[in-house]
Amino acid sequence: MNSIVLIGAGNLATQLAKRFIEVGVSIAQIYSRTEESAQALAKIVGASWTTNTVDIVVADAYIIALSDKAFSDVLPYISFNDSLIMHTAGSVPIDLLANYSDNYGVLYPLQTFSKLRDVDFSDIPICIEANRDDNLVAIEKLANKLSHDVRIISSEQRKFLHLAAIFCCNFVNHMYDICDDITTQNGVQFDILRPLIQETAAKIEQMSPRKAQTGPAVRFDTNVIDAHLKELSSDSDIQELYSLLSKSINRFQNK
Amino acid sequence: MNSIVLIGAGNLATQLAKRFIEVGVSIAQIYSRTEESAQALAKIVGASWTTNTVDIVVADAYIIALSDKAFSDVLPYISFNDSLIMHTAGSVPIDLLANYSDNYGVLYPLQTFSKLRDVDFSDIPICIEANRDDNLVAIEKLANKLSHDVRIISSEQRKFLHLAAIFCCNFVNHMYDICDDITTQNGVQFDILRPLIQETAAKIEQMSPRKAQTGPAVRFDTNVIDAHLKELSSDSDIQELYSLLSKSINRFQNK
Repeated sequence: MNSIVLIGAGNLATQLAKRFIEVGVSIAQIYSRTEESAQALAKIVGASWTTNTVDIVVADAYIIALSDKAFSDVLPYISFNDSLIMHTAGSVPIDLLANYSDNYGVLYPLQTFSKLRDVDFSDIPICIEANRDDNLVAIEKLANKLSHDVRIISSEQRKFLHLAAIFCCNFVNHMYDICDDITTQNGVQFDILRPLIQETAAKIEQMSPRKAQTGPAVRFDTNVIDAHLKELSSDSDIQELYSLLSKSINRFQNK
Repeated sequence: MNSIVLIGAGNLATQLAKRFIEVGVSIAQIYSRTEESAQALAKIVGASWTTNTVDIVVADAYIIALSDKAFSDVLPYISFNDSLIMHTAGSVPIDLLANYSDNYGVLYPLQTFSKLRDVDFSDIPICIEANRDDNLVAIEKLANKLSHDVRIISSEQRKFLHLAAIFCCNFVNHMYDICDDITTQNGVQFDILRPLIQETAAKIEQMSPRKAQTGPAVRFDTNVIDAHLKELSSDSDIQELYSLLSKSINRFQNK
């Protein structure tokens, strides 16, 4: 794969492009609908850039790092000339790419990305899939440069992985956000919870989440649970969340 | 404080006792209602042990590391002779100890503990409180030996900290447990999510949870959300959780 074009310049595209440079894979061009994003990322990786699909250059491979919704707005206007195209999305089935090229696949890094926060890419599981064995080999070769953890994952499995990622990333982060509100509203700095947050995440490196579980919901201690529900009475949504989550923990413990 | 008796031999008591030994504070005796627990912990820290409240020895200080429910089952049967007594619970107000001694306070390490998993105690925030200034000084001196992060926290604040801990520990861990089910049911190993879990926790060391939030709920992307709700149709409780959490994330983003 001598020339790669990156379609997209968002959080994932930015971190992916940086990693490509790190491992010696050059990017020929960056496409983004937003001039500012295209230009900024092109500068970082030393590539040309465009906001116009007709100006996208011919390349060996195209990596599509667009939001799910943008696929149909952008892809029909690009001439891929049956080059290998890969998307990087959790919830988009591989077959959707059949409309745009005869050679296609998926390269999905299972991680949360922000433009301004660099991550250690070498540990990130890369889920790959392709429409043909030769394309899978090519994608695997590329993925192996990015990370030591490359796994062949079907579209169906990837769909559920993306769902799981919502729980262990977005929903977990929302728990942190709720805590930020609770501590701030009571004159305590949120940072007091950081060691607990880190230990909760670290604990499951050693034991299953079910075994790691502690707290009042495990034994359904109604004294503590009722007291907490009362403390949450000013926010009925959070109160309902507390109640549902406590019941759910107890149900899982008895599975 | 030359002699300390530890009332309790559970997860917290075990880790606390180990830390005391580490920093050169000796434990005179371990009390537990369970012989096996009392004996096991006494062996680790080189103390005597008893399961009988009348055999509890006279000491300078008593540290109560019992479950909230056990307080009233155990404490009325111990003669504290107005020695300094401290409890270690998140949700028990300090005043409850007034029934048992004239000198009392709180030493609450804000962390999740398991008997078999050792933690770095030096980073754990220790929330302290006392009924009098001289007792606060004594408790602070002791707490400073355990950790470099000792904070004076009122019973009211501690109550809310304990509530927050449920969210960022028990509820977060339940998210991990739900993911364990989702991955296993779809033939993928749960360990594929570990880098995402660690990064989600690490991210908020650098930015606020609200800023760190990503995913479909932020922009309330109904295409993705509806697809996920459909994928969860076999478990209506988890489906309801997904729906509530997505709405809640979106509400927080617009706060």
